[in-house]
Order: sequence, then structure tokens, then C-alpha cells
Amino acid sequence: MSAPIKTLLSRSLLRQARPASIPRHRYLATIRVAQQAASRSFTVSYRRRDAASDTSEPHHSVKYTTDSYDIERNPAFAEISAEDVQHFKSILGDDAAVIDGVTQDATDDIEAYNKDWMNKYRGHTKLVVRPKSTEEVSQILKYCNERKLAVVPQGGNSGLVGGSVPVFDEIVLNLGRMNKIRSFDDVSGILVVDGGVILEVADNYLAEQGYIFPLDLGAKGSCQIGGNVATNAGGLRFLRYGSLHGNVLGIEAVLPDGTILDDLSKLKKNNTGYDIKQLFIGGEGTIGVITGVSVACPRRSNAVNVAFFGLESFEKVQQAFKEAKGQLGEILSAFELMDGTSQDFVKKVTGNKHPLEGEYPFYCLIETSGSNAEHDQEKLEAFLEHVMGEEIVADGTLAQDDTQIKALWAWREGITEALGHAGGTYKYDVSIPLNELYKLVEESERGESKALGVVGYGHMGDSNLHLNVPVKKYSKEIEKALEPYVYEWIQKRSGSISAEHGLGIAKNKFIGYSRSDTMIGLMKQIKNLYDPNGIMNPYKYLT
Amino acid sequence: MSAPIKTLLSRSLLRQARPASIPRHRYLATIRVAQQAASRSFTVSYRRRDAASDTSEPHHSVKYTTDSYDIERNPAFAEISAEDVQHFKSILGDDAAVIDGVTQDATDDIEAYNKDWMNKYRGHTKLVVRPKSTEEVSQILKYCNERKLAVVPQGGNSGLVGGSVPVFDEIVLNLGRMNKIRSFDDVSGILVVDGGVILEVADNYLAEQGYIFPLDLGAKGSCQIGGNVATNAGGLRFLRYGSLHGNVLGIEAVLPDGTILDDLSKLKKNNTGYDIKQLFIGGEGTIGVITGVSVACPRRSNAVNVAFFGLESFEKVQQAFKEAKGQLGEILSAFELMDGTSQDFVKKVTGNKHPLEGEYPFYCLIETSGSNAEHDQEKLEAFLEHVMGEEIVADGTLAQDDTQIKALWAWREGITEALGHAGGTYKYDVSIPLNELYKLVEESERGESKALGVVGYGHMGDSNLHLNVPVKKYSKEIEKALEPYVYEWIQKRSGSISAEHGLGIAKNKFIGYSRSDTMIGLMKQIKNLYDPNGIMNPYKYLT
Repeated sequence: MSAPIKTLLSRSLLRQARPASIPRHRYLATIRVAQQAASRSFTVSYRRRDAASDTSEPHHSVKYTTDSYDIERNPAFAEISAEDVQHFKSILGDDAAVIDGVTQDATDDIEAYNKDWMNKYRGHTKLVVRPKSTEEVSQILKYCNERKLAVVPQGGNSGLVGGSVPVFDEIVLNLGRMNKIRSFDDVSGILVVDGGVILEVADNYLAEQGYIFPLDLGAKGSCQIGGNVATNAGGLRFLRYGSLHGNVLGIEAVLPDGTILDDLSKLKKNNTGYDIKQLFIGGEGTIGVITGVSVACPRRSNAVNVAFFGLESFEKVQQAFKEAKGQLGEILSAFELMDGTSQDFVKKVTGNKHPLEGEYPFYCLIETSGSNAEHDQEKLEAFLEHVMGEEIVADGTLAQDDTQIKALWAWREGITEALGHAGGTYKYDVSIPLNELYKLVEESERGESKALGVVGYGHMGDSNLHLNVPVKKYSKEIEKALEPYVYEWIQKRSGSISAEHGLGIAKNKFIGYSRSDTMIGLMKQIKNLYDPNGIMNPYKYLT
Repeated sequence: MSAPIKTLLSRSLLRQARPASIPRHRYLATIRVAQQAASRSFTVSYRRRDAASDTSEPHHSVKYTTDSYDIERNPAFAEISAEDVQHFKSILGDDAAVIDGVTQDATDDIEAYNKDWMNKYRGHTKLVVRPKSTEEVSQILKYCNERKLAVVPQGGNSGLVGGSVPVFDEIVLNLGRMNKIRSFDDVSGILVVDGGVILEVADNYLAEQGYIFPLDLGAKGSCQIGGNVATNAGGLRFLRYGSLHGNVLGIEAVLPDGTILDDLSKLKKNNTGYDIKQLFIGGEGTIGVITGVSVACPRRSNAVNVAFFGLESFEKVQQAFKEAKGQLGEILSAFELMDGTSQDFVKKVTGNKHPLEGEYPFYCLIETSGSNAEHDQEKLEAFLEHVMGEEIVADGTLAQDDTQIKALWAWREGITEALGHAGGTYKYDVSIPLNELYKLVEESERGESKALGVVGYGHMGDSNLHLNVPVKKYSKEIEKALEPYVYEWIQKRSGSISAEHGLGIAKNKFIGYSRSDTMIGLMKQIKNLYDPNGIMNPYKYLT
């Protein structure tokens, strides 16, 4: 059981007799007691299920993307023939590397590659290829480009915008068999991996060496690093470790014509020409396939602390954030926001008792990571004393060990999965100035009454809000109430209509709300430069 | 006067009676006493002089680049006519915005723009334009592109590879008048500036708001942020704050055809399409001119400490670095390396007394920045105790106040300027695996006897070495002894032949030692895409 902060603080105050910034009697009088049941268990599954093994939803009940979207197959693309299948088999050697639904019925084997984990997007592919080397990827793409066969690169298939599943009969190029850790240097912290290495596998490996992957997200148990880079994933510790544009040192990628972009640098600094690899970070597999990644990994912190707060208003959340930045400084590694509705969904789905006794409109999870446990504890205590004494935070609890840390994180990371139990969820992943971050949720609530709720949560530290509207069933009526309203709202504030999820097929039509015509024109120029036949991940991104 | 570490440590040991990781008597017995003269003064100028005001070297004594390099003017470029000058005057309105050496004699006014601060490169330009707005830059470039007039964008002209001065008669487009801080958000820490804002001006402005610019370098008093971004400057605190590829959130740039790339995002996350601005970071003004930059700035640390060490071997330097990473963790903000020869040059030029009494083959400067002075002090003391007790460090001193911090930094930052007093310096800015970092200096020493010395220093934390070979006079003989030897040495170790200085005209011929033909081919494709007439900063970078 994680401990109520009050108890911890009084213990610490008694022990240290340190001067509190506010008179102690006032402090004790104003903070609320979080009486927690000793029997509480935190069992929510906080990792998303692997898409390929997710058979809970019968395939036939998932609507084809071609039925939900008004979209036509590009007639310039060839149709896959038996000869093509034969050719891929000859390249890949191993029978297991080709799932052939062209010359035989392979529906059951193929469907997991055809649909996303949210059961929102479903394609019509009949062929999955699973290369084991960069050279094989090169041969596949070269052939596809010459034959004008469309291709969808697929990593862990854990995306949220339908970017990694086919729409029509695009060949799925799955990276799952390219899963080797290539090298690690324990002085520099530079890790080189195949594109198909699962994020959690890499992070566990790094943990053994005293290092940490500079990216973490709910889907870490299934997402792949190549996919993370291709979608420029942000995640939970962006606040501390920053963007993949800074942390990725090198990329090996295969261009549509089979050219291998060999830029797998293990150097932190290398100013010799245009940094072309950056185009592939966030390129969503539309100009090439990432087969290798070199990344600078920071030292893993010895001491990690997680606190969980209840707060009475978004105003107070902002105050708490400002205080956290100031007082926790360099040890702050996450500041996550969850509204009351989001926690109601997790409670309902998991049946678990919430870490905090009372109900609050807002909750925050704060994580610190540092090299000296005693120092961090002192900083955290001073911070907690201040925010509770000043009534910025109404109630709070502090994890006492790793199990409790995971349990508290589960109330944040479990939101996506909990919402997944609704019939469907309209998802908006937006970036807006901090002071207006939650206003979007409140205003969307007013406009929408048919939904099961309007949920707001996200990465407060990055001004990144996840606005989710769970519904019994997707309907044009609800969609119309939300769109373009939400996008226009964001545009007025010069925000981003996709902060970290990318465009895929879900957001591509709305890029104009966040980018000028000039920028879109320049992007299309890049697409044409690398993929003149347009075979890579078509119907998405810029189309 | 900064204090000898031994004194500080014994004081701290007495005060705290903390358990040392090694027996105290051994500790006291093994560290060496740094007896420092009370009258010591640190007066070395640690900021580079502004290029435009540097008139110490008579212009005529500086060799033209066209005489030192075997290079021919591209006949496709037009020659500047009186009509062109008239046109620029009509665009820019203000007479002061055009320095016209075409229709009149303006040699004295123009020469500062024609040569670099090292007196190594000198061009033949007869026209300098100094626009005040992005719109003016757009009109200038559009005209130049149509007329096929070549252009050199110029910021603070503090580069080290001749990238910001003309070779032949390219028009100098100087950004110095675009020097406005456009906006700053004190919650998010996002700063938006004109490209011509001087780095130190921006950092001083941020200091008032409790923030820091995530880049610092010796030339901060004259270099401009647009130039820093165009050259992807690394500098002194890369170790802590990381790369501009991660910190720059948005760029406004003008393409050669006059198109304004309007990507001045103030968002930390924005996954809506290819991150095209990244091509301009490190593009060295060859595909456009950066007129605006948006950058994420971290909070300024309350507590800054600087220690300066003498060490007996490079082996010990590596040990000290590993210990610093482990024990100082998140507060380590710089770990700089200087060899004995580098310090001899600074001593000689400044006449100052060195912070350490004895002479050592290696010196290190360690900086910590944190939010809690007491905690940082404790971490630093434990670290110092350890590295001195274990005889990793032979002697050391710790700055006691801001003046001493600056003074210690001057022994690191002053190296470039001190070497500038030689007749010339062969400069190599390389990235190689840490364990071999200094081997390059030792091996270059063996091969070269005609030089005034072989100097090694740099950013240990980033595996970034500055190998400098000061000479009385540049000579083919010395050059041949060094090149291609140095480049081949780096290539064998998959290093970078230009870690942070860029290519310019000094390194462009050697790009093949660090990049494959495929990568160079892809880079040329990008150049041709944006600048088909090749008017931007010609004769450099990829040519």
C-alpha cells in the first residue's frame, strides 16, 4: 500500500524538525487524510495487449476502413499475383516469413495484421512478409517499387491513428523478426538495435547495464523501436529526456527503391552534412522503412519516487506543475494529468480501489528520478509540504516501493485500455498552451451529450492533452458534434492536432489545421523525392 | 581565489563527520596540496572578440581563400551590377542596409565581412546587404535566385571552418539587424527570436526570467542564434541539455526562391508531417536563411559549481568521467578536457597564474547545475572525496563564487583565442570513441615536429576532441604530415571528421571520411531540391 502523504510528512517533520515554509499547525489542519484500506490491491494491467495475440474481438465485427472512410483504391498500384508471392518466398527463403493469403486461404493468420488493437481500422491485405535482415527489406522494397505494389511497414501495431494497418491490399511488411540488439557501449550509453526490437526488451536490457531507454509509453510491451522512431513517439518521460529528434543518433532505413540509408552513427555529434535521418523520425513509414536505430541512453536513476495527487481545479494543477518544476528541478521525470472521469473509467473496468479515498476533478502523477535517494526524498518532501500546506493539492499518496510505483502508474497508463472497453473512442491528441489545456475538455463536454463521457488526461509537462470521447458506437452525429469543432479550437490557439500520435489515416485530412499550405507543399515535395511511385503506406499521412 | 579542494573537503569532513568511502587517514595522505597564491587574478578574456570590430590584423596580410585553395568561380553566377545594387537599395530602403563596394570604394567597410576572425579565410565580396525583416530577406533571395547571384548568409561570423565568409564575389547577407526577441513564455520556457539575436543577449534575457539558453559556447558574445542553428552548434553544455535537433521547436527560414518556410512552432510536440526544419539545423545556410528560431529553454539552476582538476593520465581522466556521470548524475552539466599543452598556451598569452600549482599532462573542468545548493554541494564533495582519495585526480580546486567560476572557465574557453596568437592553427574537431579520444593527439604529435605544439582539448562528455596544431605559418609540408593522416585515423574508428564545427570550406572535401557515398548522394539530392541554381553559400559544404 502506498502511504498517505500526510503520514509521511509528519514522520519526516518529526524526524528532521525542519522549518516548514508554513506554520505547522496550519499545515496539519488543512491537509486531508487519505485513509487507505490495507487490503487494497493494484492489479490493473498497465501494458497493452500484443495486437497480434489480441483475439478478443471477432474479426468479422470490425468494420473495414474502406467502409468507414470515403476512399478509393489507387489504380496505379498493381495487384499481388501468385508470381509475386513466389518471388517473396524466394527472397525470404523461410516459409514462415511469408503469410500467403493470395494463393490460399490464410484469413485467420492474416487478420491480426489487418486490424489495429482498437478494432477501429481494418484492411484487406492478403500478404504479410516478415524479413529478417535489412538486405531482405531492401530486396522486398526494390521489387515492390518496380512492380508498383503498395506496402505498409508494421512494427508492434500499437498506434492510435491507423498508420500501421493496410487500407486495401497493401502488402504488410512486418518488422517483428528483426529483433536483435546490435550493440551497447556502457561508457557512452549508445545502444544500437534492429527496428523490430520491442521497447520493453531494450529497456530491460538497459536496466541490467544501469541505463534507461529515453522513451517510455503504455504500449512498451508490444511497440517496436523502429515504429517508435517512425512515429516520433513522445510518451511519459519526454519532459525529462526530450525528443527522439535529439536522442536518436543514427538510423538505418530502406528507401522505396531499395537503397539502404546507412546512417547508423554511434556519435553524439556529427556535423557533416544535412541530417537526413530526421525526416524518417515521424515520417510514419511513408518514405522508407526503419531497420536499425542508434540511440543515446541516459544513466538509469538509482532513486525513483512516484506521488499521486487529488486536486480541486485545473488552476491548482497548473500551480502544482509550476511548483514541481521549480522545487523538483532536475529530478522531475514525469508530470501527468488525469481528470476525474478518466479515473472513473479505470475504476469501473479494473474494479480496483483508487489510491485516493475522496473524489477530485483532477489527479496528477509526479515522478522523480535522481542519483541520490536521500536528496530526492528531501526535495520531494519539501515540495509535498509546500503544495499540501498551501492547499494547492487536496490529497496525495506516495509510493513506498516498486510495486506501488507500478500500481500508481497503472492509474495513468491504464486509461487508454479502460476506454478501449467502450464501443469506440474518438481520440484527440493535442498540444495547446498550458493555461487553456483543459478548457478544450470542458468546452467539448458542453457540445457533446450523446457520448459516454468526455475524458481529458495527458502529459502536462509537454502541454500535451489526450481528449477522449468514448461512445457506445461510432456515429456520424457525434463525429459532427466534435469535428471540425475540436480542430478549429486548436487552430485558433496555434496548437497541434496531433501532438504525438501522428497523422496515419485518422488525422491526415486535418493537417491543415496545424500546418500552412507552404509547409504541406514542402512536405509533399519530400514525399515525391523519396517515393515517386507513392507505394509507401498510401492513403495516409499527406494524402 | 578558488579554494584548494583538500581544504574544502577537510572542512566538510569535520563539519559533517560523514563516513568517507575510504579511510580518512589514507585520503589525507594521498591528495596533494594545492597551494594557491592569494594574489592570483584571473583576467583572461574568455569571450571571443566580435569579428566585425576585430581590426588587429591588417586586411592585406590575410591571404585570399582563392589563393590558398584551388578553386574556380562558378561561371553560372552573374556578376553584381550597379542595377542590382540599386534594386537592393530600393528593397531595403535604408542606406545603411547596403554596403556598396560595387559602384564605389568601400573596402574598409566591407573587409570585416570578407574575412573570418581567425584570419584564415578571405573573400572578394563587394556587396553586403543587411535586411531588417524576413520579408526583406525573402525579396533579396528571390531576386538573387532569378538573377543567379550567389549569396553567403552571415551571422556573427564566429565559425571555425570558413562557412560564413564569401570565397569570390558572393553577396554577404548579414543578419545582424534582425536582432529582436520576439516572445517568451515563462511557463513553458519557449523563446522565439530573430535569427540575428546574439546568443549572450538571449541568455542574459533568459537569466532574468530564471531560464537558460540550452546552448553555450566561447563565442557567445558575438555568435548569433540563427548561425548557431544553421551550424548545429554543440558547445559546452550539450552533455546536459542535448542537441539543437531536440531543443529547437521551430524555424522560420527563407528558401532561395524567396518562399518563407513558416514553421515557427511554439509546441514541444507536433507530429503532423515531416520535420523539414531539421534539414536547416546544420544545413550551414546552403538551402536557406534562418530568420527566426523557437527554442525550448530549461529552467536556470539555482546552484552552479565548478571544479578544476589536474590528472596524471588519460586513463585517469576516463575514470574521473565515469565517476562523475555516476555520482553527479543529473546535476552534471559539463565535463571538459584540456591537456597540459593547451594550458601552457593560455598561460603564455594571458600571463595569468594557473589555478593549479603543479603541472599535469591533463586537466578537467567539471560543472554541476542543480536546484538545491546544499544537495549539490554534498554530491560534489562525495565525488571529490572519492576521486581524490582514490588518486584518480592528482590535484583540484573548487570555485567559491561566480567570479571564480568564470575564471576557471576562462582556462577552458580561452584556449581557442590563445592559439589564435600563433601564426596559424590547423584545427580538427572530431568525434571518436572515448577510450581512443586522446590517442589521436599522441599519434599526431609523433608524426609532426614542425609545429609549435599539438594541443588536445574538448568536450569529454560528448566524445568530442579539438585537435589543434598551432604553427608559425601555414605550410604545405605540415599540412601533408597531418592530412589525410588525421582523417584516415578517424575513419578507421567510424568517427566524425567534424563533430560540431561543420563543413564550411575547411572540411567539405573530407566528408567522405565520415559519410558513405549513399548518404552524400542523398544530401546532394536535398541541395538540388531546395537550391537548384546553387546560389546559396557556394564552394562549401557538399561541393
